[in-house]
Amino acid sequence: MNAYIPYKKLIGFTEEALKKGFGYSEAEARVTAKVLVEADARGIPSHGVARLAFYRQNLAGGFAHPGAEPEIVWSSPSSLVVDGHGGVGCYVAEFGVQKMLSLAEASGLAFCSVRNSNHYGIAAYWAELAAQRDMIGFAFTNSYLSATPTFGRRRCLGTNPIAVALPEAGGRLFSLDMATTTVAHGKIELYDRRKKPMPLGWVINEEGQGVTDATAFEKSFHGSRLGGHLFLGGEGEENGGHKGFGLGLLVELLCSGLSLGSASFATYNYNPKGEAGICHFFGALRLDLFGPPEDLKKHLGGIIHEIRSGEKAPGHDRIYIHGEKEAESREKALAEGVFLDEATRGYLAALAGEFGLAPLSGGEA
Amino acid sequence: MNAYIPYKKLIGFTEEALKKGFGYSEAEARVTAKVLVEADARGIPSHGVARLAFYRQNLAGGFAHPGAEPEIVWSSPSSLVVDGHGGVGCYVAEFGVQKMLSLAEASGLAFCSVRNSNHYGIAAYWAELAAQRDMIGFAFTNSYLSATPTFGRRRCLGTNPIAVALPEAGGRLFSLDMATTTVAHGKIELYDRRKKPMPLGWVINEEGQGVTDATAFEKSFHGSRLGGHLFLGGEGEENGGHKGFGLGLLVELLCSGLSLGSASFATYNYNPKGEAGICHFFGALRLDLFGPPEDLKKHLGGIIHEIRSGEKAPGHDRIYIHGEKEAESREKALAEGVFLDEATRGYLAALAGEFGLAPLSGGEA
Repeated sequence: MNAYIPYKKLIGFTEEALKKGFGYSEAEARVTAKVLVEADARGIPSHGVARLAFYRQNLAGGFAHPGAEPEIVWSSPSSLVVDGHGGVGCYVAEFGVQKMLSLAEASGLAFCSVRNSNHYGIAAYWAELAAQRDMIGFAFTNSYLSATPTFGRRRCLGTNPIAVALPEAGGRLFSLDMATTTVAHGKIELYDRRKKPMPLGWVINEEGQGVTDATAFEKSFHGSRLGGHLFLGGEGEENGGHKGFGLGLLVELLCSGLSLGSASFATYNYNPKGEAGICHFFGALRLDLFGPPEDLKKHLGGIIHEIRSGEKAPGHDRIYIHGEKEAESREKALAEGVFLDEATRGYLAALAGEFGLAPLSGGEA
Repeated sequence: MNAYIPYKKLIGFTEEALKKGFGYSEAEARVTAKVLVEADARGIPSHGVARLAFYRQNLAGGFAHPGAEPEIVWSSPSSLVVDGHGGVGCYVAEFGVQKMLSLAEASGLAFCSVRNSNHYGIAAYWAELAAQRDMIGFAFTNSYLSATPTFGRRRCLGTNPIAVALPEAGGRLFSLDMATTTVAHGKIELYDRRKKPMPLGWVINEEGQGVTDATAFEKSFHGSRLGGHLFLGGEGEENGGHKGFGLGLLVELLCSGLSLGSASFATYNYNPKGEAGICHFFGALRLDLFGPPEDLKKHLGGIIHEIRSGEKAPGHDRIYIHGEKEAESREKALAEGVFLDEATRGYLAALAGEFGLAPLSGGEA
């Protein structure tokens, strides 16, 4: 199989795999395939089609229930609370976000909390749906238990990402999407595979000490609730670890707090009802709340331009604005195909064989 | 003078100093004194009455104009944009926040951007005004030019703090208030005075290299636009410096971007019109957008309780939730008086002498 798969073809294959292999409905498969392939196209393979393996585990573990329909359990003219009933994460998120965007179109702004959902892919995808409509978009989610608080050593929060997208002049978006932990878990797995020492500031061990041995960390990580990721700023307060912890806790309170849902420490295997229990929080503010949208987008673009054009640090020739790398990677992927590494291609080929799907290795470019 | 000054007495003295010494109106003095003394009471002296010296400099420099009245220049049922016309920062902020809270009381939620203001004290004060009314409160501000972007060495942003406050059960608040840079500038000044090396990850020098010599850094900081603070996560991307930079840039875009105001790189001496040009962004979401407030506050409190009660790291016996240290310090200050260090007491005594104010050293407890 070629390493570069046409974008639409990869979406089509992923849809088929989700429908025939995972029992997703047409609508569940459509949005999930789109969100996963978007991640690969943007150069974020950790959240791309390779995640099908994780989504499959969630079916097997009874965490995700294709066919479950999300329900609005509380609402106002500018807000809604959704119970996902354990449904497919991207489908539940799409339900909440589209309803929220309709409210925001009508009233200027709206927010949506979601409980009892599942993994929803890259957070930026959801924030950008708002930004594409001349709104400021917000997307947060809690996640499986992985992170320790400042001065603590028991895991209590997830990597709890923050995503915010703003439109600027020329159709570009400022699009920040960041785990509030120093790194996502995939990065530690990579260091483990490469037997490379991690920098201090990424994790602590079960005794609560900062460690650099990724392999030893990975072994203990899956055995107990002690030890885990550190938040942005690292261990203790000296380099601001308490700030990163505050951001991760804020995301938790917005997601599980404002949906009366399960906190990260009560998700998946820690959930008393055996639910994934993942919670989200979304927001959208129409730009015209604050002035003429074209003037605002031009002004936002001007600020970003000034920052991009400053003198560079030694060894660097570019200051990256958040979302730029991803937008450039996406443009390339739409023109040249979406890159998949060998392991992912092998996984997709195995799925094709197992479920009788047309393999991706066809001759088209 | 006693090191512990009764809270109300310190507010009264500060009001008098602002009126008689700085030419503030009654209303400008009232809110400014309250916000400054609140910082001292909470154990944040960097933002307390010692800041009177900075506020006075801003008068002398023509940056702050007592008597200037803020003006609403754009509005909707859930938003407003305020032009502060270079007025007193706390007075301008109070104007915008109170109008925004009225809109949020009526419609459920509201946001407010502010341009051409001045320093508004501790960000948490403004976010907590919303949380005290069963809302989720947000407060952001840009600030004087101090921080460098990831891979850059020219300063382009301020310390750009984020504050978010949520009410929880028992009248407590989760109250996060954090500079998006690793540390606030006052911490570097402290290391300079003590001739103590800073940890790597706080600043880079003019050449763009991480440095630990606070004294050398302080010397160059005031001479050029090269070198400056690093954002949370430090230098480069390894420990997430690009995330902190993203948060700082986000705050800039919300504050100066959504008010058509001056970005941090165009404030104070860098402002073409000689204005301070400081911009803010505020938000408030009524809790009942998401469910019965008492249920939500209990649930938020339960999540926080679980996090607080986890096993501790070696050498620590407590996990601090954001705002707890400050609330405890405030309670003590209300009972025992507000602590002021010797330098601050000396400064207040000098102001009293200069402006003919009743000195603070009176006998009352």
